[in-house]
Amino acid sequence: MRTLSGVGTTPLSGVGRARWYRPEAALSLPERPDPETVDPEAEVERVERARDEAREALAVARDRTADRVGADEAAVFEAHRQFLDDPQLVGDIEDAVADGTLAEHAVADRFAEAVAQFEGLEGRMAERADDLRDVRDRLLRALLGIDAVDLAALPSETVLLAERLTPSDTAELDPDAVAGIVTATGGRTAHAAIIARALSIPAVVGVGDGLATVDEGVDVLVDGEAGEVVVDPDERRRASAGGVEAPVRTERVHTADGRAVEVAANVGRVAELGPAAERGADGVGLFRTEFLFLDRATPPDEDEQYEAITAALAAFPDDRVVVRTLDVGGDKPVPYLDTPTETNPFLGRRGIRPSLDEHADLFETQLRVLLRATASDHGDGLAVMFPMVARVEEVEAALDRIEAVAEDLDAAGIDHAMPELGAMVETPAAAFLADELADRLDFLSIGTNDLTQYVMAADRENEGVATLHDPLHPAVLRAIDRTAEATGRTDAWIGMCGEMAGDPALTELLVGLGLDELSASSVTVPAVKARVRETDADDAAALAERALACQTREGVLDVLDRS
Amino acid sequence: MRTLSGVGTTPLSGVGRARWYRPEAALSLPERPDPETVDPEAEVERVERARDEAREALAVARDRTADRVGADEAAVFEAHRQFLDDPQLVGDIEDAVADGTLAEHAVADRFAEAVAQFEGLEGRMAERADDLRDVRDRLLRALLGIDAVDLAALPSETVLLAERLTPSDTAELDPDAVAGIVTATGGRTAHAAIIARALSIPAVVGVGDGLATVDEGVDVLVDGEAGEVVVDPDERRRASAGGVEAPVRTERVHTADGRAVEVAANVGRVAELGPAAERGADGVGLFRTEFLFLDRATPPDEDEQYEAITAALAAFPDDRVVVRTLDVGGDKPVPYLDTPTETNPFLGRRGIRPSLDEHADLFETQLRVLLRATASDHGDGLAVMFPMVARVEEVEAALDRIEAVAEDLDAAGIDHAMPELGAMVETPAAAFLADELADRLDFLSIGTNDLTQYVMAADRENEGVATLHDPLHPAVLRAIDRTAEATGRTDAWIGMCGEMAGDPALTELLVGLGLDELSASSVTVPAVKARVRETDADDAAALAERALACQTREGVLDVLDRS
Repeated sequence: MRTLSGVGTTPLSGVGRARWYRPEAALSLPERPDPETVDPEAEVERVERARDEAREALAVARDRTADRVGADEAAVFEAHRQFLDDPQLVGDIEDAVADGTLAEHAVADRFAEAVAQFEGLEGRMAERADDLRDVRDRLLRALLGIDAVDLAALPSETVLLAERLTPSDTAELDPDAVAGIVTATGGRTAHAAIIARALSIPAVVGVGDGLATVDEGVDVLVDGEAGEVVVDPDERRRASAGGVEAPVRTERVHTADGRAVEVAANVGRVAELGPAAERGADGVGLFRTEFLFLDRATPPDEDEQYEAITAALAAFPDDRVVVRTLDVGGDKPVPYLDTPTETNPFLGRRGIRPSLDEHADLFETQLRVLLRATASDHGDGLAVMFPMVARVEEVEAALDRIEAVAEDLDAAGIDHAMPELGAMVETPAAAFLADELADRLDFLSIGTNDLTQYVMAADRENEGVATLHDPLHPAVLRAIDRTAEATGRTDAWIGMCGEMAGDPALTELLVGLGLDELSASSVTVPAVKARVRETDADDAAALAERALACQTREGVLDVLDRS
Repeated sequence: MRTLSGVGTTPLSGVGRARWYRPEAALSLPERPDPETVDPEAEVERVERARDEAREALAVARDRTADRVGADEAAVFEAHRQFLDDPQLVGDIEDAVADGTLAEHAVADRFAEAVAQFEGLEGRMAERADDLRDVRDRLLRALLGIDAVDLAALPSETVLLAERLTPSDTAELDPDAVAGIVTATGGRTAHAAIIARALSIPAVVGVGDGLATVDEGVDVLVDGEAGEVVVDPDERRRASAGGVEAPVRTERVHTADGRAVEVAANVGRVAELGPAAERGADGVGLFRTEFLFLDRATPPDEDEQYEAITAALAAFPDDRVVVRTLDVGGDKPVPYLDTPTETNPFLGRRGIRPSLDEHADLFETQLRVLLRATASDHGDGLAVMFPMVARVEEVEAALDRIEAVAEDLDAAGIDHAMPELGAMVETPAAAFLADELADRLDFLSIGTNDLTQYVMAADRENEGVATLHDPLHPAVLRAIDRTAEATGRTDAWIGMCGEMAGDPALTELLVGLGLDELSASSVTVPAVKARVRETDADDAAALAERALACQTREGVLDVLDRS
């Protein structure tokens, strides 16, 4: 038995047999034959069949991903399909084959050229080069008759080991078969980790080079709460694996000394509502509406949106459901929205910015839906929040739009009511303006993933700055504190719907910072609720004071361990 | 006489004749002839000649830009040259010509395909598509015998009008010939505006659609201080044009009630040192060292760097020269530095991040140079600052490196001394940690361009979020205030080296916020000095209080006008 340490990203445990996933392993090509011996017609047909096969596999992967995870993550497969059908690429391959090149070499050569071209042009092309390599490997596997590890059809009780997993890899996994995920790289807020949490798959990431020493086939225990990977675990350790999950409590929780803290769930699709309720979430702290808009040719109509919102209200008839208005932008482009090309999409037209401008029509429809839903059964629990607010002016403009929509509904005699209204605090600007924002709204909700990204100027998805992307850096804690403190002086309540809110090791700190509500993946709800009940509000406040006085992340970690 | 309003970005005035620059105007192709009538050999030769001509023009543009502005801006021409010599593009064009297509059509067709391919692939390609179009237009102009407007050879007393100017366009201008620049789009911190300031060309940007009503050839006055464009100005207005520039005062300035404020210059190359001194700058508030590293195949050696630093010290023998350590990253890639591909380069490995890690060797050499230079003549004026600091840990690591370098120099018996040390406040994190940073350093300097970008989560070069990229948003003022206030409680001094510091209309506000030093393009120095002398420190503090209490940018503007 030996133990590797990493970052636990789904607070669940599981045991299974190690299986390595190495999509990057080299595909070895046959020798180049004498062109005279090659039958060009047969080779052209082989290329066609390989393309058909790859196209089919891509469609399956796309649908499965869209269904299990979200249209957002499924979009990459459509991009791959475009490469597969690129007239020039295909034409060049066919030309080479017609000249007597073996299909495998024609594919490998032509893709090598294309990859080199992309890489040679300029920095940003490398991403697309990776996509090209994926497509090439699919074609070569089809030509060579090699099966890739089918992530969707792993044997039960598999613990999947990998250098890294892409979000799409993770989305393909069958949660019933996969007992755990362990990766050498990655962090808590990587998309792959977020998807694993959404699928309730125990996961430990960022284990480092040591992972390479774990052999295929050995038994591995993944403890996603402790952030540990136990190779060849003994009986005692195995026995503990099942018992890590906190008991589900559907009732509201208070700190030991009686302060109420809501523990809600982040939900990205209607299918996640049931599990969130079962795990005892006190409502939905973040209902993302993007799933309604992605992976389709036209925007959803009012009825379709109304149905999704009322489904959420029905799943939590006595609780609050916080719906975030459409949050798309250059980082998650939607074909029919004509999203702009941006050099730094995370610093571009995202969140409420397009809603108040080029997508005002979509915003208006969404507001109609939300005002109507507020007047429906259980509608008094509905709350609406705006993403990426950076100016008071934006909140005022959004309130004006809501007023105008209410007047239109009045004039048309359509039932409606005003929901609770709030804004996300994701930009440092919103933290600096928390007082004024809270004065105009019913609540604020801190999105720690983005807030950390902007405070630290570190892209949350860029591994090169992963050390910087951590909400425990004192600067981020101070931004949170400034927001909570300013909101506390108003009548508004203050929540947090970033991944930080779902880490039970931080619950006491967050209570101490004054948060009224914590919302994260529903799998984290039982553990966070359990921590709230153990917390003493005064001790928590003292802990927060000590953390805020720290000058470094190390210092904050010390304070948290000591507590 | 009529007046258009915009944003003055170089506080100088000039009068000249309007000349429109419309690089996007369509190039009309000849009819497609019967392929039988085309002489393929002659056409192949025409393509060759056009490529030679374009290659030569690109080399001239590159050298001129590198020379006048900087290697950074010159790099784009090398990328264009690569397209011009791309074997596949050239091969396809030659194939088409060999088949009887006229050279113009072969170029237009093949580039159209390439542009479409790039645009079709995914968002980020559009930039490269623009580059392709540029190269295509160069080739077509060469084939058609059309001269482009040669920006480097405009007749004297020209006022250049354009929808937009790229940084490279601007860099080509001859400051002696161009009396002013007016563009319909753009903002104060756009690179083109910064270059115009560096070249001392009067400029007003962001004039809007109204600019289209100005006819070629009419007289235009560009008032870069008032942000006005006067068409057909009367005598009185003309007479005022010469008198706008504030008188040069080489002595130090104080507010009317005696508070000292240093007014320094931002300098990007050795050639800018002389003009900065002539304009009365109290030293250099930001000496960018990137020019030493860009546009070359290998990094500069220690001697070359030493020479540049000591040249700066010699230009300001009695003043402080603040040298910023190397600040490169994904947004300004350097070929031999192997800068990474990043989806959001402004949130990636920039500033001090690579200096403490993958470029530790370059950083060490630079520190050796700086410690040696501090012991040279006038070296006691040398100060060193680190860019993009987001953590106390980074400053501590940098101080450790400096200590180690000093020990090495000691051991080798090489003369050296310790310069003043500081950090730039560009990330919101640095603003939240100003107390702790200032405790460890001699000074902090606020970089408002980046700070605004991160506080507002708005890419400073993305026109789609230009409204957000303004330091007068209350959130940015509060971040500046937090920094200045915290630094004021320590022994460190606090400066500002962003473009905001060079806007005389904001001088009183900045004095009121407590800044000890203001540094911007040297052309702004006389006007800022004049404003400091008019300012009363108590009034300024009251003005700053009022501005900080504002909830919107509108409110801040009101406060500034009222003052």
